[in-house]
Amino acid sequence: MKAVAAAAGVSTAAVSQAFNDKGRLSPATRRRILDTALELGWSPSAPAAALRSARTRTLALVVRRPTDVLGADPHFSELITGIEGELAPRGYGLLLHLVAGAQEENVLYERLAAEGRVDGAVLTDARAVDPRPALLARLGLPAVLLGAPDRAAAVPSVGLGRQGAGVEEVVAHLLQLGHRRIAYVAGPEELQHTRLRHGAFDAALRKAGVRPVAVLHTDFSEVSAVAATVALLDTADRPTAIVYANDSMAVCGMGAAQRAGLRVPKDLSVVGYDNLPLGRWLHPRLTTVDQQVQRVGAAAARVLLARCGEDVEAERLDDRPRLVVRESTGPVPRRPAP
Amino acid sequence: MKAVAAAAGVSTAAVSQAFNDKGRLSPATRRRILDTALELGWSPSAPAAALRSARTRTLALVVRRPTDVLGADPHFSELITGIEGELAPRGYGLLLHLVAGAQEENVLYERLAAEGRVDGAVLTDARAVDPRPALLARLGLPAVLLGAPDRAAAVPSVGLGRQGAGVEEVVAHLLQLGHRRIAYVAGPEELQHTRLRHGAFDAALRKAGVRPVAVLHTDFSEVSAVAATVALLDTADRPTAIVYANDSMAVCGMGAAQRAGLRVPKDLSVVGYDNLPLGRWLHPRLTTVDQQVQRVGAAAARVLLARCGEDVEAERLDDRPRLVVRESTGPVPRRPAP
Repeated sequence: MKAVAAAAGVSTAAVSQAFNDKGRLSPATRRRILDTALELGWSPSAPAAALRSARTRTLALVVRRPTDVLGADPHFSELITGIEGELAPRGYGLLLHLVAGAQEENVLYERLAAEGRVDGAVLTDARAVDPRPALLARLGLPAVLLGAPDRAAAVPSVGLGRQGAGVEEVVAHLLQLGHRRIAYVAGPEELQHTRLRHGAFDAALRKAGVRPVAVLHTDFSEVSAVAATVALLDTADRPTAIVYANDSMAVCGMGAAQRAGLRVPKDLSVVGYDNLPLGRWLHPRLTTVDQQVQRVGAAAARVLLARCGEDVEAERLDDRPRLVVRESTGPVPRRPAP
Repeated sequence: MKAVAAAAGVSTAAVSQAFNDKGRLSPATRRRILDTALELGWSPSAPAAALRSARTRTLALVVRRPTDVLGADPHFSELITGIEGELAPRGYGLLLHLVAGAQEENVLYERLAAEGRVDGAVLTDARAVDPRPALLARLGLPAVLLGAPDRAAAVPSVGLGRQGAGVEEVVAHLLQLGHRRIAYVAGPEELQHTRLRHGAFDAALRKAGVRPVAVLHTDFSEVSAVAATVALLDTADRPTAIVYANDSMAVCGMGAAQRAGLRVPKDLSVVGYDNLPLGRWLHPRLTTVDQQVQRVGAAAARVLLARCGEDVEAERLDDRPRLVVRESTGPVPRRPAP
């Protein structure tokens, strides 16, 4: 501890504060202390260090989203379901942490590693610039990244191939039904899959010589999905089809359209994304893209369990997102309803 | 370790196996070893014992349900959302474990306590006969039980008062609309709240001199909700109103009824339970019972955090479940649709 304090140019009290997240250290000082401790291989307690080498049978899932993400985005429930399906039979638990920002997230990974709280981590919401794989590699914590397979990443990534394929099929399906006025209700701009799918949507339409009516970004919440739908339907040249970035927004949008007196799919076609169980039971049943969230979560858990020394065979995901045509899409209306 | 082995009448290797859940010990032997170790205050590693006194900033949520519970029952997502809302700002994580049976559950709590993995536990799905409070008290692990306030329990319980009040209001609402043929699609029979609400439903109808058309038990899944609905609607004397034990089943039931050509609420009134966000956005909007799942989760987390030494004031929940009338209930049809 003295060595860490000396190397970081602080008092031993400051080192203690840095690890306990107490006191009035500036974030920069705290970082410097934690980095120094990591470099010197020091952790705050000998018991923690001893335990570090022991199995915790715990995997971390740190999510940098608002704390209502589970309620607001059933995608997450599906993902955790897939992960738990592999963890539970092996007596593993999932440590769920919700964090507000990148700084908090990094400090948390460092604490979890230093205190030996977890055997590994599942990284979700891949970002365009993502410091997590390098951080976890540095901390010596096995990790797996959810997202399109990427051989260049510092940790293995698990996901379906050809992420844009689902959106391409959606556009082809709608074009074939005669739709030309197609809008897209997207997720938050900073997420990689938002950009990726938005890009695929634009490219597929452009290839057919069609311009999107509108692309609206949301925070994935029900309120913003309804607001986007109402805004889209309240225009003179309203879309005949709306594609949503997830199923829960599509369900909200479908309700908003029906409330506005439009019949789905007779007056408006609606497409979701995720293939959540609920979509199968609504009336009309939701046309959506199956990206096998549970299966991807399970596959990621298996890769991570194997990296943690468990006797698990990694499953090869050689599939891609696929369109599931149900009842919420139909031929373009001859004339839009008034 | 030798003392434990001697007291339990086994080898030291068996003690090690019992704690690592390896080897071929019978469940009974394993239990005896773990019990003996607990009695003697012994845990498998000195580091773990030393760490036990340290804060982990982790709370456990052990759920004895199928691993798809999160996907199948959004109630759980809401609950976790409420808990996380209190945990995240304080840097706490939630350790989620899904277990298959009581034996596995007990062993897990013992391991978590012995290894010092968590500071406390949130107990959900209160059972008619519930050994968990006594077990956790014995393990010295702070806990809170989700359910109706109960002063006799070994751990504090947190929940809304008068659990039956919501169902009573539902029945009064339907009776006032003229309904007399009312069916109930319940959850699994072994859950305390299933019995409680079912009892309240029966009592409220009986008080009005009305017999329930039918009470069907489900496993909370979409498939069973649809099957129950189809069975209810496929009778000569079909119900004019169906009350569901949760919102996701109500949404599935509503879809099934609409698919069968019934208009909601003109031909059939539908009531849910939970007041999930989705119900507000469907068409028609779902009449349901608000049991403030997120708020109860948050209140339970606060009680537990306070017991773990955090400076948190416990919130007093003096509310009860309340009916939220929306659009899926209406006057009884003059004659049932053919």
